[in-house]
Amino acid sequence: MTDHPSKTLAAFAANLRFEDIPHEVVRRAEDLLLDWFGSAVAGKGARPVEAIERFARHMGPDSGAAEVLIARRRTSPLFAAMVNAASSHVAEQDDVHNGSVFHPATVVFSPALAVAQELRCSGRELLTASVAGYEVGIRIGEFLGRSHYKIFHTTGTVGTVAAAAAVGRLLRLTPEQMLDAFGSAGTQAAGLWEFLRDAADSKQLHTAHAAAAGLTAAYLAKDGFTGAKRILEGAQGMAAGMSREPDAARLVDRLGQRWALAETSFKFHASCRHTHPAADALLQVVTEHKLAPDQIASVTAYVHQGAIDVLGPVVNPQTVHQAKFSMGTVLGLIAQFQRAGMKEFEDHFNDARVAAFRSKVTMVLDPEVDGAYPARWIGKVAVHTVDGRMLSGRVDEPKGDPGNTLSREELEQKALRLAEFSGGASVHEMQTAFHQLWDIEHAPTVGYFLT
Amino acid sequence: MTDHPSKTLAAFAANLRFEDIPHEVVRRAEDLLLDWFGSAVAGKGARPVEAIERFARHMGPDSGAAEVLIARRRTSPLFAAMVNAASSHVAEQDDVHNGSVFHPATVVFSPALAVAQELRCSGRELLTASVAGYEVGIRIGEFLGRSHYKIFHTTGTVGTVAAAAAVGRLLRLTPEQMLDAFGSAGTQAAGLWEFLRDAADSKQLHTAHAAAAGLTAAYLAKDGFTGAKRILEGAQGMAAGMSREPDAARLVDRLGQRWALAETSFKFHASCRHTHPAADALLQVVTEHKLAPDQIASVTAYVHQGAIDVLGPVVNPQTVHQAKFSMGTVLGLIAQFQRAGMKEFEDHFNDARVAAFRSKVTMVLDPEVDGAYPARWIGKVAVHTVDGRMLSGRVDEPKGDPGNTLSREELEQKALRLAEFSGGASVHEMQTAFHQLWDIEHAPTVGYFLT
Repeated sequence: MTDHPSKTLAAFAANLRFEDIPHEVVRRAEDLLLDWFGSAVAGKGARPVEAIERFARHMGPDSGAAEVLIARRRTSPLFAAMVNAASSHVAEQDDVHNGSVFHPATVVFSPALAVAQELRCSGRELLTASVAGYEVGIRIGEFLGRSHYKIFHTTGTVGTVAAAAAVGRLLRLTPEQMLDAFGSAGTQAAGLWEFLRDAADSKQLHTAHAAAAGLTAAYLAKDGFTGAKRILEGAQGMAAGMSREPDAARLVDRLGQRWALAETSFKFHASCRHTHPAADALLQVVTEHKLAPDQIASVTAYVHQGAIDVLGPVVNPQTVHQAKFSMGTVLGLIAQFQRAGMKEFEDHFNDARVAAFRSKVTMVLDPEVDGAYPARWIGKVAVHTVDGRMLSGRVDEPKGDPGNTLSREELEQKALRLAEFSGGASVHEMQTAFHQLWDIEHAPTVGYFLT
Repeated sequence: MTDHPSKTLAAFAANLRFEDIPHEVVRRAEDLLLDWFGSAVAGKGARPVEAIERFARHMGPDSGAAEVLIARRRTSPLFAAMVNAASSHVAEQDDVHNGSVFHPATVVFSPALAVAQELRCSGRELLTASVAGYEVGIRIGEFLGRSHYKIFHTTGTVGTVAAAAAVGRLLRLTPEQMLDAFGSAGTQAAGLWEFLRDAADSKQLHTAHAAAAGLTAAYLAKDGFTGAKRILEGAQGMAAGMSREPDAARLVDRLGQRWALAETSFKFHASCRHTHPAADALLQVVTEHKLAPDQIASVTAYVHQGAIDVLGPVVNPQTVHQAKFSMGTVLGLIAQFQRAGMKEFEDHFNDARVAAFRSKVTMVLDPEVDGAYPARWIGKVAVHTVDGRMLSGRVDEPKGDPGNTLSREELEQKALRLAEFSGGASVHEMQTAFHQLWDIEHAPTVGYFLT
């Protein structure tokens, strides 16, 4: 155990080489990159994302080396990172690391791709930098822990440092500069859950902010701008201000041996990840017993405390985005369509039958589920049928978790559905992008996708 | 007392009219604006500030309607706000509001001027918007209180919302939009004191970030982007995450009757405000008793806890900026030169005699001083002389506080010294700017100062 974990972690990020990363972790990084690309394209047309894009147009340069995917234009890396991070988080289809409750792709790939395009980096450099961002961000999320997540949107806060790690690696920062970048990123860490109560647009602002702030921190560090050397663990650092139970050992947990990136889950349902275990468990029950929604009298979802904290305030969702944080809506869609995808949310989240289903759903804190969380996200439901049966469902790994992952074909299908939903790219364009992305390891320069 | 203070405060900022502001408050706002201008010019050449300016050049447009004062160039308001906010906070000569321990000018005038230039606002609109920013920011600082300031740099955190209020007023946001802007600003609130321990460059990043984030929030709100409606007081809002003793009544304290802007202090010494009361008290002793430094055996500075929190870690300052947070250095300069200005710090902070004086200085927590803080910043010192005398000094209002303020001539002299120090503008340029600034109330459009 080091007495200066920020430094150890920064040195790891600065020194990581492509050759150090196991083959299967590289493959998984490619999977996550393609999955992120689909989510980024999915954000086209979403009101909050388009507002951020208009702001970027207003304030940023109208040419540059980095690509804004939803706008098919190029600008400076700062604004490409900002808009791509907003757009890749709005569909709630981007990846998640269970143990840290952190969405790495949106805050890592968005700035990394923008900077790799500007610097004309190779695909291997992009992959290496992205792995650095994942490993750093996930460990900081675990370090700050559950008390942090109760108030703060970990992806927004921790995302600043994850973004700085990825961009810093592309900029070839020295370990000392990387530590400076961590300091400048962590001191900009922000993102509060308060917006959920009002179904406000902040979630995309959080990722846009994290990507931009982390990128800023890394570029400044390259230019000699210094930062706090213990921004994570120091007496007036991130944990001191924003966690009640920081665990510094997590920051340096088996660096170079444990690949946290490979623990990251793909999202299958188009909703907040906290709804997925119960959704899969209910899907199991309705499939096995061929239940129609009107045969269901009530559903009890046995959940962890974090689900209650995040989903609890959402009682009567007014927007598609808010509905993705409504357990009743998600389970209503599963009962009705055996699916809670983008299309089901968009077309049906407030159908009379789905809305009526909400009052049938109760969340109950479950000691087993809560004890396993966040390392494992167990799904347990009890279904009371109208005819008096009590049926139970259980999943130990929701669909998309590493032990129940998506194949490359499933990932492509998911990305195609997202692109079709938003109109962000044609099937042909997506397939061309898939070809580039699956072969990114061999790309001498990363190149462009939609411009 | 309202049950929705964020809304009340946002409505106040949105609805504030020039005619509502008392004449003497407008005059003081002009004083503060001119004082800010001097600080902004003073940042020219400072390494961290120039790094942020280079970043702005790299990422932002090379033309636009807003002026970067230290670079004599124009760009978009986002980058002008960012660079001017960095430059106006580096000399530690910008204003401070005692009760909130918040530096309003740097995070209010920087974005407000940039946006007023873009929108071709009148001087009255600029003044009105700036008053809104001060009133909002100061009240939020008071609301978050001392527990917040122990870990967080209030100017960085609260500054986001103060900037949003000022910019939002210039954009003529409705009260509802202003509340959205508060939500988007507050959810980006960030800034940790950890950097002080390493004399790192984060302080200027905090103000740059706050100005940029607040401006972003206001522009997004104008475009329909929504934010949390209770970002200040909500269960997962700023106070919930970053304060242990929030006092919601402070948020709406006598809105429209109490003008917190007029309580703001000008800085006289070029150091952290926490050193000023003791510096003035020591100056009183050395002047009255005509003491030379080598006649002083020891100095005890009786201080409030906040001074110990912020200054305590700075034992052996390595840079000019860090020296401004060293009580021993400040008192050493006072003993040696009867002055702790920019020039004294730059040329003498680490002189052998000043460095030796540090070990003579002890800070002691004083119940009277601590009890009066932050409403009043009392200075008390006890000086032991080499010849065995015990002399005491006391000031109830340090120089620059509202009851002991600087005249317009003193403000001009201070600004001229700052400009001369940095080489940021000639005497003639400064005098031309003074002429514009003292008459800003009557300017049909705000205009430019150095471009």
